[in-house]
Amino acid sequence: MSKARVHNLFVSMDGFAAGDHITLEKPIGDARALFAHFDGRFIHGFGPVDAPFTLDRALTSTWGQGIGAEIMGRGKFGPQTGTWTDDGWVGWWGDEPPFRTPVFVLTHHARDSIAFENGTVFHFVDASPAEALALASEAANGQDVRIGGGPTTVRSFLEADLIDVLHIVTIPVVLGRGTPLWEGLAGVEERFDTDVVASGGITHHLWNRKPR
Amino acid sequence: MSKARVHNLFVSMDGFAAGDHITLEKPIGDARALFAHFDGRFIHGFGPVDAPFTLDRALTSTWGQGIGAEIMGRGKFGPQTGTWTDDGWVGWWGDEPPFRTPVFVLTHHARDSIAFENGTVFHFVDASPAEALALASEAANGQDVRIGGGPTTVRSFLEADLIDVLHIVTIPVVLGRGTPLWEGLAGVEERFDTDVVASGGITHHLWNRKPR
Repeated sequence: MSKARVHNLFVSMDGFAAGDHITLEKPIGDARALFAHFDGRFIHGFGPVDAPFTLDRALTSTWGQGIGAEIMGRGKFGPQTGTWTDDGWVGWWGDEPPFRTPVFVLTHHARDSIAFENGTVFHFVDASPAEALALASEAANGQDVRIGGGPTTVRSFLEADLIDVLHIVTIPVVLGRGTPLWEGLAGVEERFDTDVVASGGITHHLWNRKPR
Repeated sequence: MSKARVHNLFVSMDGFAAGDHITLEKPIGDARALFAHFDGRFIHGFGPVDAPFTLDRALTSTWGQGIGAEIMGRGKFGPQTGTWTDDGWVGWWGDEPPFRTPVFVLTHHARDSIAFENGTVFHFVDASPAEALALASEAANGQDVRIGGGPTTVRSFLEADLIDVLHIVTIPVVLGRGTPLWEGLAGVEERFDTDVVASGGITHHLWNRKPR
């Protein structure tokens, strides 16, 4: 059974998971401090990167493993809003988007799919969380679906009770503003078996949906 | 630079990493309690196994990632000693050995290599730890080498200061006898940066060789 998994979602002490003021130059807005501990080399598994074997690295490396598709909000794909213009924008990542699977970008505005040689294919869909998850699960071909963010997208999937694995990383910074992850979700933890482990100053929260 | 890594080596509270009385029926001898917490489905990465996302699982799943070859002692391959006889023995694992890479079996007795469809190839070599590591590193083709055990083999590589990553899992059992991992290694921890984390009643030790 395909699971919906969130991995490595960085959240501040006050519950913000992205910053305000997203622009082309600042894809995470004013929340740079959230990513200070993040080493992007580790998301594709515990491979031959010349870095120590650490708990943080082992957990970070689960991001791509067993994942057959991703769902993301439009804000993760780009800063534009409204109707797509023919501006050549294909995401923040250049020729090598790290996803390597189909990616379903949630937007009310239609656009042709964009395929990359490394297996990443962006599809643009106007769909509810449940509809998007059905599409992505089929595309994942038996593997799991990553709910890739941003936080507004993760929150909407939590509201719809569609998340099976929630891997939050709490960073010891206080942002004061940004996109609140937990808004409207009081008591959501009761649906999960929760565990937590600290590593190198940050905290990994491993939440698994209780049997339904 | 290729690293020599030990992963998921189960050790009792009193320092034994395998049991006595190894036979065809009991590949781990009298040490079954050491493996009571082990789920073999997890060694090939954090894939689509229908099981919770746990710290223990994330750490266990590093076993095969970024590994291009293994070195094992003869006792891990089979219970026989002395000259090989033509008994058809190809290891404990049947048609699907879990290694999927070249495997160098340390033995004083020559034998032809054995290849499997899944990429596992057993080579039988009469070599010192340093010589075996040179062979395996070349076969690993830029990836890391796993020192796969048993404990006597791991100990010999520690004595020769050839281990870069030592991932020991301490199990809360007292065996009283078996193969001692730490014999003759007093002070070995001073060569490593050590970290430890408990998860579900067992303890993962993550040791990284200090810069030489």
